[in-house]
Amino acid sequence: MKFLIIGGDAAGMSAASRAKRRSPDLEVTVLEKTGDVSYSACGMPYNIAAPGKEIEALVVRQARVFREKQGIDVKTGYFARAIDPVDRLVSGTTADGTAFEYAYDRLLLATGGTPLVPDLPGFDLPGVHVLKSLDDGRRIKAFIKTNNVKKVVIIGMGYIGLEMCEALRALSIEVAMVKPGPVFLPWLAKELADTVREEVLSHDVDLHAGHSVEKIEASESRLKVLCRGLALDADMVLVAMGLKPGSELAQAAGLRTGVNETIAVNRSLLTSDANIYAAGDCADAYHIVTGEKTWIPLALRANRAGWAVADNVCGEKVELDGIAGTAVFKAFDLEVARVGLTVTEAEQAGFHPESVSVKTRSRAHAHPGSKPIQVHMIGDKKSGRLLGVQMVGREGVAHRINAPAVALHARMTVSRFSQTDLAYAPPFGPTWDPLLTAANQLLKKM
Amino acid sequence: MKFLIIGGDAAGMSAASRAKRRSPDLEVTVLEKTGDVSYSACGMPYNIAAPGKEIEALVVRQARVFREKQGIDVKTGYFARAIDPVDRLVSGTTADGTAFEYAYDRLLLATGGTPLVPDLPGFDLPGVHVLKSLDDGRRIKAFIKTNNVKKVVIIGMGYIGLEMCEALRALSIEVAMVKPGPVFLPWLAKELADTVREEVLSHDVDLHAGHSVEKIEASESRLKVLCRGLALDADMVLVAMGLKPGSELAQAAGLRTGVNETIAVNRSLLTSDANIYAAGDCADAYHIVTGEKTWIPLALRANRAGWAVADNVCGEKVELDGIAGTAVFKAFDLEVARVGLTVTEAEQAGFHPESVSVKTRSRAHAHPGSKPIQVHMIGDKKSGRLLGVQMVGREGVAHRINAPAVALHARMTVSRFSQTDLAYAPPFGPTWDPLLTAANQLLKKM
Repeated sequence: MKFLIIGGDAAGMSAASRAKRRSPDLEVTVLEKTGDVSYSACGMPYNIAAPGKEIEALVVRQARVFREKQGIDVKTGYFARAIDPVDRLVSGTTADGTAFEYAYDRLLLATGGTPLVPDLPGFDLPGVHVLKSLDDGRRIKAFIKTNNVKKVVIIGMGYIGLEMCEALRALSIEVAMVKPGPVFLPWLAKELADTVREEVLSHDVDLHAGHSVEKIEASESRLKVLCRGLALDADMVLVAMGLKPGSELAQAAGLRTGVNETIAVNRSLLTSDANIYAAGDCADAYHIVTGEKTWIPLALRANRAGWAVADNVCGEKVELDGIAGTAVFKAFDLEVARVGLTVTEAEQAGFHPESVSVKTRSRAHAHPGSKPIQVHMIGDKKSGRLLGVQMVGREGVAHRINAPAVALHARMTVSRFSQTDLAYAPPFGPTWDPLLTAANQLLKKM
Repeated sequence: MKFLIIGGDAAGMSAASRAKRRSPDLEVTVLEKTGDVSYSACGMPYNIAAPGKEIEALVVRQARVFREKQGIDVKTGYFARAIDPVDRLVSGTTADGTAFEYAYDRLLLATGGTPLVPDLPGFDLPGVHVLKSLDDGRRIKAFIKTNNVKKVVIIGMGYIGLEMCEALRALSIEVAMVKPGPVFLPWLAKELADTVREEVLSHDVDLHAGHSVEKIEASESRLKVLCRGLALDADMVLVAMGLKPGSELAQAAGLRTGVNETIAVNRSLLTSDANIYAAGDCADAYHIVTGEKTWIPLALRANRAGWAVADNVCGEKVELDGIAGTAVFKAFDLEVARVGLTVTEAEQAGFHPESVSVKTRSRAHAHPGSKPIQVHMIGDKKSGRLLGVQMVGREGVAHRINAPAVALHARMTVSRFSQTDLAYAPPFGPTWDPLLTAANQLLKKM
């Protein structure tokens, strides 16, 4: 049986490896348009912050190893351009322009996401970058090195923008960030977002929220980012405005699409075609809180979905629970995490949200080195259910968020969550964990 | 209504504060045998490690503040000696020997635990200490300061022994630890316990497991701890062999006792007498995994149970879920955590345990500063349920343990836990969290 995979990053290579391991007779072929497979995309900002380190350090396994050790036919530089779902064929062109065609019994679309780049003048100028593929990372590292970059403008203030901001500041590069929306981190409660904002500002970053970029101009050897009433000079521009799902191929083949033009899949990752699966940033997922389809493209889901596709292709019926939207990122010395719904998302999903923000400490009363931790917790007044949690602090945030993540999977009420037995020792938290204090406060309001 | 409380630490003062806040007309009286109320007992090792810091820094709220600001009649130096449950009277003597008697409508026994001290020669010598009350901490600090302590023998190798070992080493005091059982940290899987053992040894601590202490002798101005075939010199001895519940008063009053001679309470913390509650280290609890009674005396439960008693005394019917035995402690640069059952405990409870130990990393592939994390996970082959988790590592352990704690409260299977959406970012973990890797591996064996 022929198992063909389009896309050789997290979802694609997870599926390829697992399928070949489970069913050694399976013919597994991966078509990857870039020259790289199986790398840690999320590690790129940290790699860029370390000029002495090769970007290749992020490669988890080389294409060659997949071929030689695992018997997976990995084709890099193979751009899939069309799917024929009736005859089960994928056609395309290689990097040197040669046409190819592959037949499949089962196909996996692991086409990932594409950075959003507005159709405005100057976004194609040299020195204007996005950060998605390993090649993007390579180009950025080379550009910084070659062009003596002193100042960067980042368009966008999401995870990647902020991680890159930190990376560039670590290189002593000046950074200005700009975005059209007026609110910094709108998915965080205001008091938590303010803490992150202050942290970013304290690292001498200029933040310009509420400015739509109109164009980028080249001026002498530099760039100028022009917004209404604002002009920002830069040696380099990073466009970090978010992703769109890579669903063009699927759409052209007539597959059903879901939220945000993702490829719609069921709990077994099957698309509307019984022979075609989709996994990773290109596909939608069920949200465990709402039970509805959502699109939150993150690495764990991509890996997990890749495995589930492999299991299904190998004849085991596997369904995935769904996602909680658990996410964490580092913003300079702060850990910022979220899980579940925001108040706005909860309202949109038909809940009756009540929320509370508490500020407690990362360690016990009187323990040295204690830092503030802020917790924002959201519950449903009608059902009592826990709906979401956000946290910001200098320590103790990144892994704490997993407790409410599990609680959301279990559809716990705030009341039951408030009764959970969370660990305590003076170096690691107060007797009442910040999450329990938040739950206790929220219960009073609900 | 008169609400009388015996014991002024975590459970007692939590109950007193909450009851008085909820029902300002309630007459709340606390009888505390020592001179201290409401202090962080768990913080004592860290305070002892800091000679410049007063032990009073651990007092959360002074008795005076409870009296003057909260209207709670706190009596320190009041030793309750008998309960008359028929006439609802508590009698005893004050520090200066005066007899007292208090009537109650509702009584809370928050009598805590007492350090286990064997009935052997020399355990009452000057320089032989236990660490439970703030006075114990005070005495130890003073003894170290006054006696130019260069070497300490700790009898026992549990949490408190190890925390004190770290504290003493921070003061450059030589430490030897001795205990009768042959296995270091028997509640940890061997491969995890070995890591902790090596960490302790690497800090120049002598460990003598498998040696029963026979007596302590005074020799010149020093002490000698004598075991069969082993003699250890010391300037000071710390007896850290565990606790026994402070249930003598309750037993003498004819109240029902539970496991380990604890005071037996129902989910509302009521004893076998309808007017007497018990909370904190003196009382038993339901274990959320087995559903059976257990005794795991820890601070969060004491505080929570104190609150629940207050709510019940104030007329709201409150029941507690039970405990998962979630615990964390620091052993030099290691974080050590556990939740739920060990394999042995699981067998004893009638489960069919399967377990796995994995060693993964605390940060992403290629991320600098990554450290090993060991996870031991236990599941029930028959029901598929998650039963327990243990973790050891230099970072990322203390709060990670809360995710399986919540899963145990939700009675999740290992399979469902393996599907939970846990946070990922390169500085904080691999894409597959160490807990998920453990769950995936355990599933293969189950």
